Amino acid sequence: MSHLVHDFNEYRKKMNDRILATDNLVVKRFFNLDTNTYQEGALPARTKEMLGLVASMVLRCDDCIRYHVQECRAAGVTREEFFEIFSVALVVGGSIVIPHMRRAVEFLDALETEKK
Amino acid sequence: MSHLVHDFNEYRKKMNDRILATDNLVVKRFFNLDTNTYQEGALPARTKEMLGLVASMVLRCDDCIRYHVQECRAAGVTREEFFEIFSVALVVGGSIVIPHMRRAVEFLDALETEKK
Amino acid sequence: MSHLVHDFNEYRKKMNDRILATDNLVVKRFFNLDTNTYQEGALPARTKEMLGLVASMVLRCDDCIRYHVQECRAAGVTREEFFEIFSVALVVGGSIVIPHMRRAVEFLDALETEKK
Amino acid sequence: MSHLVHDFNEYRKKMNDRILATDNLVVKRFFNLDTNTYQEGALPARTKEMLGLVASMVLRCDDCIRYHVQECRAAGVTREEFFEIFSVALVVGGSIVIPHMRRAVEFLDALETEKK
Amino acid sequence: MSHLVHDFNEYRKKMNDRILATDNLVVKRFFNLDTNTYQEGALPARTKEMLGLVASMVLRCDDCIRYHVQECRAAGVTREEFFEIFSVALVVGGSIVIPHMRRAVEFLDALETEKK
Amino acid sequence: MSHLVHDFNEYRKKMNDRILATDNLVVKRFFNLDTNTYQEGALPARTKEMLGLVASMVLRCDDCIRYHVQECRAAGVTREEFFEIFSVALVVGGSIVIPHMRRAVEFLDALETEKK
Repeated sequence: MSHLVHDFNEYRKKMNDRILATDNLVVKRFFNLDTNTYQEGALPARTKEMLGLVASMVLRCDDCIRYHVQECRAAGVTREEFFEIFSVALVVGGSIVIPHMRRAVEFLDALETEKK
Repeated sequence: MSHLVHDFNEYRKKMNDRILATDNLVVKRFFNLDTNTYQEGALPARTKEMLGLVASMVLRCDDCIRYHVQECRAAGVTREEFFEIFSVALVVGGSIVIPHMRRAVEFLDALETEKK
Repeated sequence: MSHLVHDFNEYRKKMNDRILATDNLVVKRFFNLDTNTYQEGALPARTKEMLGLVASMVLRCDDCIRYHVQECRAAGVTREEFFEIFSVALVVGGSIVIPHMRRAVEFLDALETEKK
Repeated sequence: MSHLVHDFNEYRKKMNDRILATDNLVVKRFFNLDTNTYQEGALPARTKEMLGLVASMVLRCDDCIRYHVQECRAAGVTREEFFEIFSVALVVGGSIVIPHMRRAVEFLDALETEKK
Repeated sequence: MSHLVHDFNEYRKKMNDRILATDNLVVKRFFNLDTNTYQEGALPARTKEMLGLVASMVLRCDDCIRYHVQECRAAGVTREEFFEIFSVALVVGGSIVIPHMRRAVEFLDALETEKK
Repeated sequence: MSHLVHDFNEYRKKMNDRILATDNLVVKRFFNLDTNTYQEGALPARTKEMLGLVASMVLRCDDCIRYHVQECRAAGVTREEFFEIFSVALVVGGSIVIPHMRRAVEFLDALETEKK
C-alpha cells in the first residue's frame, strides 16, 4: 500500500507543530492568515482551493501541490477538473511543470487508493 | 482619459501579428494551444480565466495579469471576487506580489473608466 | 532634478490607499503583517531591512528593491554596505540580477541627490 | 551499481503513460509540442538539446536537467561541452544552481557507468 | 527612428561604469567572470550566446534578453534560428514568456532597422 | 540518530570535489567567488550569512538553505534570530516558502542534536 499520503501528512503536521511551538508572532500570524485565505467568501472555498493548486503548480512546489490536491479532492473536484487545472498550469508555466504534474497525478492516485 | 488599456491591447496585437507572421510551427501551435486552454470544459471558461490570473500573479508577469484581468472582467468577475483572487496570489506568492497587485488594480480601474 | 524617488513614492502610496480602501480582510491583514515583519526584534530593524533588500534583489522585483533601498538608507546603511548586500544578491542570484542592480544604484543615487 | 538512470526513466515513462491515458486534449497536445520543439530545424537537434539543458538548469528542475543531460549525451555532447553549458547556467542563474549542477554531474557519471 | 537599441546601450553602459567605479571586489570579479563565460571554448561563442539568450528568456529578464539578442545577431544568428531559440524558451517556460518574446522581436526589428 | 547533517555534508563535499576536478575555469572561479562573498567586510560575516540564508529561502533551494543554516549557526545566530530571518523569507516569498521552512527547522534541530 502507498504511504505517500500518510507520510506527507505526518511530516507536515509534525513540523508545523514544531514551528508554531516557537514564539514568533509574524510566523504564527502568517500561518493563521494562510488558513483564512481559503475560506468561503465571494468565491466558494472550492474555487479558492483550485486557485491555490494552480498557483502552487506554476511555482513548482511539490508539497504545496500535494496539500491543495488533497483539499481540492475533499471539496469534490473531479479528475476531469483536475486535469483542466493541470492544463492551465502547464500552458502558463511550461514544460518545467511536467515533473510536478507527474507527482501530482501519483499523489491523486494514492488519495484514491487509500479511500477504497 | 487613461490610455492604459488601449495601449496595452494595441501593442499586444501588433507584436502577436508580427510573431505569427513568422514561419515557426512550434510558436504558432503554442499560441493556438494557449487560446484553447481557456475554453469552456469541465470547468467554466470563467473559472479558467481566474486560474490564469492567479498563475500570472504569482509568476509576476504584468502583461499576463492585465490580459487575464481583462478576460475575467469580460466573463463577469466582480471586484469582490477579484480581490479574493488577489488575496490568494498575495498569500501564496508573498509581498513581492504587491507591486503587481497595484498595477492590476490600476488596470482594473482603467477598464471600468473606459466602459463609462 | 530626478523625479524617480518622488514618483515611486507617490504611485506606491496612491495605489496602496486604493487597495486598502477595498474591504478584503486577508489583503489588509497581509499589509499589516508586512509592516510588522521589519520591526525591531531579536534582530535590529536595520538588519531586517537588509534581509528584505537582498530577498527583493534575488526575486528581481524593482519596486520592492527601491522600497528597501530607501528603508535601508533611512536606517543608516552605507554605500559600502549596500554594495556588499548587492554582491550577495549577485552571487546567489546570478547575472540576471545585474539589470536590477543598475536600477538599484540609480535609485540610491537619486536618494542622495534629493537629500542635498 | 547505480540505479539512478534506470529509476528516473522508469518513473518518467510510467507517469507519462498515466497522464496521456487521461482524455485531456490540451495536455496531450502540449506533450506532443514538447517533443516537436527539439527536432532538427534551422538549428541542429544537438544545439536545441543544449538550449533545453541550460533552460532547465537556470529554472532549477532536476528532472528536466536529467532528461536533457541524457538527450545531450545521446547527441554526442562531450564532458567539456557539458561543463561549458553548466558554466553559462551558473553565471546566469547564480550559486543556487550549484546543488542542481552537483546532481547533474552525478547523473552524467551514472550515464557513463551504465554504458560500460 | 527607433531609439530602443541606442537608449538600452547608453543606460547599460552608464550604470555599469557607475557600478564598476565602486570599490567592491566581488562585484568587479563577477562582471569579469560574466564576460569570460561567453568566450570561445569547447563550444563556439555563438552557441554560448544562444545559451545565454534562452536562459534569459525563461528567467524573463528583458534587459538580459536584449543584450543576448544583440550579441547573437552580431555572431550571425539568423531570424529563423532566433525563432527556434524562442520556441524552446516558450515551451520550457510557458506562456508567461510570450510578453518577453514580444519585446525580444521588437528589439530584433529595431536592430535591423538601425543597420540599414 | 539523525544522519541528515552528516549525509548532506558528505554528498556536498563529494560532488564539489568531483566538479572542481574538472578543468573548467569559469566554474572554478565561480566557486572561489562564492566563498569570498561571505567574508568579513563592511558587513560582518555573520550578517552576510544571514543574507545568504534569506536569499536561499525565497529562492526555495533546500541545499542552499541547509548550508547557510549551518554557517549561520557556526556564526552564533540564535534560534530566535533564525525565526526572524524565516519570518522575513515567509512574508516576502509567501506560503510556498513554508515547506522549505519545515525542512530548515528540521535541519536546525538535527544540528543541535549532533552537538549534544
